Amino acid sequence: MNASRSASRFTAILLASLLAGSAIAASAAATAPAAKADSNPARTGADVIKAATAGEWRDVEPRNLLIMDLPQGQVLIELAERFAPRHVANIRTLAHNGYWNGLTVLRVQDNYVAQWGDPNGDDEKTAKPLAPASAKLPAEFSIPFKGLPINKLPDVDGWAPVSGFVDGFAVAANPKQNKAWLAHCYGVVGAGRGETVDSSTGAELYAMISPARGLDLNITVVGRVLKGMEFLAALQRGGPNMGFYDQPEQRTTIKQVRLASDLPESERPHLQLLRTDSKSWDALLDTRRHRGGWFVHSPEHVDVCGATVPMRDKPAQ
Amino acid sequence: MNASRSASRFTAILLASLLAGSAIAASAAATAPAAKADSNPARTGADVIKAATAGEWRDVEPRNLLIMDLPQGQVLIELAERFAPRHVANIRTLAHNGYWNGLTVLRVQDNYVAQWGDPNGDDEKTAKPLAPASAKLPAEFSIPFKGLPINKLPDVDGWAPVSGFVDGFAVAANPKQNKAWLAHCYGVVGAGRGETVDSSTGAELYAMISPARGLDLNITVVGRVLKGMEFLAALQRGGPNMGFYDQPEQRTTIKQVRLASDLPESERPHLQLLRTDSKSWDALLDTRRHRGGWFVHSPEHVDVCGATVPMRDKPAQ
Repeated sequence: MNASRSASRFTAILLASLLAGSAIAASAAATAPAAKADSNPARTGADVIKAATAGEWRDVEPRNLLIMDLPQGQVLIELAERFAPRHVANIRTLAHNGYWNGLTVLRVQDNYVAQWGDPNGDDEKTAKPLAPASAKLPAEFSIPFKGLPINKLPDVDGWAPVSGFVDGFAVAANPKQNKAWLAHCYGVVGAGRGETVDSSTGAELYAMISPARGLDLNITVVGRVLKGMEFLAALQRGGPNMGFYDQPEQRTTIKQVRLASDLPESERPHLQLLRTDSKSWDALLDTRRHRGGWFVHSPEHVDVCGATVPMRDKPAQ
Repeated sequence: MNASRSASRFTAILLASLLAGSAIAASAAATAPAAKADSNPARTGADVIKAATAGEWRDVEPRNLLIMDLPQGQVLIELAERFAPRHVANIRTLAHNGYWNGLTVLRVQDNYVAQWGDPNGDDEKTAKPLAPASAKLPAEFSIPFKGLPINKLPDVDGWAPVSGFVDGFAVAANPKQNKAWLAHCYGVVGAGRGETVDSSTGAELYAMISPARGLDLNITVVGRVLKGMEFLAALQRGGPNMGFYDQPEQRTTIKQVRLASDLPESERPHLQLLRTDSKSWDALLDTRRHRGGWFVHSPEHVDVCGATVPMRDKPAQ
């Protein structure tokens, strides 16, 4: 792609893309052509991210960072300990014991989910044992709203009375019912279940390759993909049976899944996320609500699923 | 995938997936395990589709059906003549003259768009000529709301005062401003533009691989993918420069793009869509608002981007 292209009609939907959903928003913003600033003197998302103070970034804790190695690349998942403590604990145990190593991505349904686990998981004789992880957990569909440090969005959400952000996660809530839950946005990771609400263990996980808020409150969400979502989203779609691959050889083999805290310090990814309880995050959302430059119509709205939290490598001390 | 799997915990998010966004909703519904009916005596989406009368289906008109052949498979796009007549006319001319044959998909930005056109489109010397198609068109971002036969959704939409369906397309509107426009939902196809609003010709097109309503009213939407969206959505993502491929060889070559009306009758796809001004469509939306069976929480909401119009092969006369 030559330089002229980046200032051409191909930039069409460039500006819109900043923070639109890229897990590498901070770096993407840095590549925005400087020429754009001339036509839009207002602060851009890139400006806001650049100006964020050190205290507005938080480390991704190694105990909450799951590292899944696929042939296509590495997928990093942050676990949502606050929202699904039992599932997250089980997932840590499974990762510690190498449960997913050699298992597969066995379902990719277009515009819906990519799902991975044990292809023999339903066959008691051949299923890979979960132990020492638990085979039975309670459903963790919601937590109490009261006391939750949520940064509420003023924008209306058709799916819930309240939406906003907690710990970098997109959250919806119903204060009257004293419930809050993780919203099924792009990149959200959940624990597949069967007919009963308490049939998930975290051994079988799915990532949303499209948002599907209708799943909210119906299944336990355990985290979200911070990096590498494109490797799951670009997998070949499966067959007409809900995206399950018809042939075993179509499945993608998982090399390994490890918890960062199980790795030596030197081998851990060191990442930071912009705090969603920070002024810079609020300012960033404002740059998305009020659009200028290439945009001739400003939406004056953001959606809880349409704003991605900037991430960066932790700066050297 | 054996039979036991389809009634297992792997069905977890099965029911949710019916009509969630599959362009083959009608056939997908047909594969839902019959066992599910026992636990949910209410009408399912599959029931509603099955019961729709002949008059509730409409033919996809050959003059509005663009057929793009990729190495991965065929992508069918319905053109939105009512919303962008000038662009649609230009696209018909381009297809008629084989403009896209041998051009490429040159950008795939994760969670955003797949974009195709002429890699040399910005270089006057080497660009493929558009003639006899026009190189200059007016922007077609919206049409008058007044008189538009929209089937309004009662559900709130954070992005616009009104949302609903026209001719099978997801539409948003602002009655006070007398404007209606096509919403940037999954699978929507638009015409890339540069800095000026009238810089699109339809020669360079993008398809949304994720919804991005913030683009609404900023660019001309020309149609939506009816079938084969999974071939665009599963393409390898491009580089950090907004998803443009770094290397020309990463691009996907388009075999050909033809308009169905340019083909002999016997070679045309014969498809029908459920009319979005029909009672069955309303009933289908209701099955999505009010969930039972596997669902323990009913969302009591549908989103204009979250409901996909059922499609089928035209029955033999």
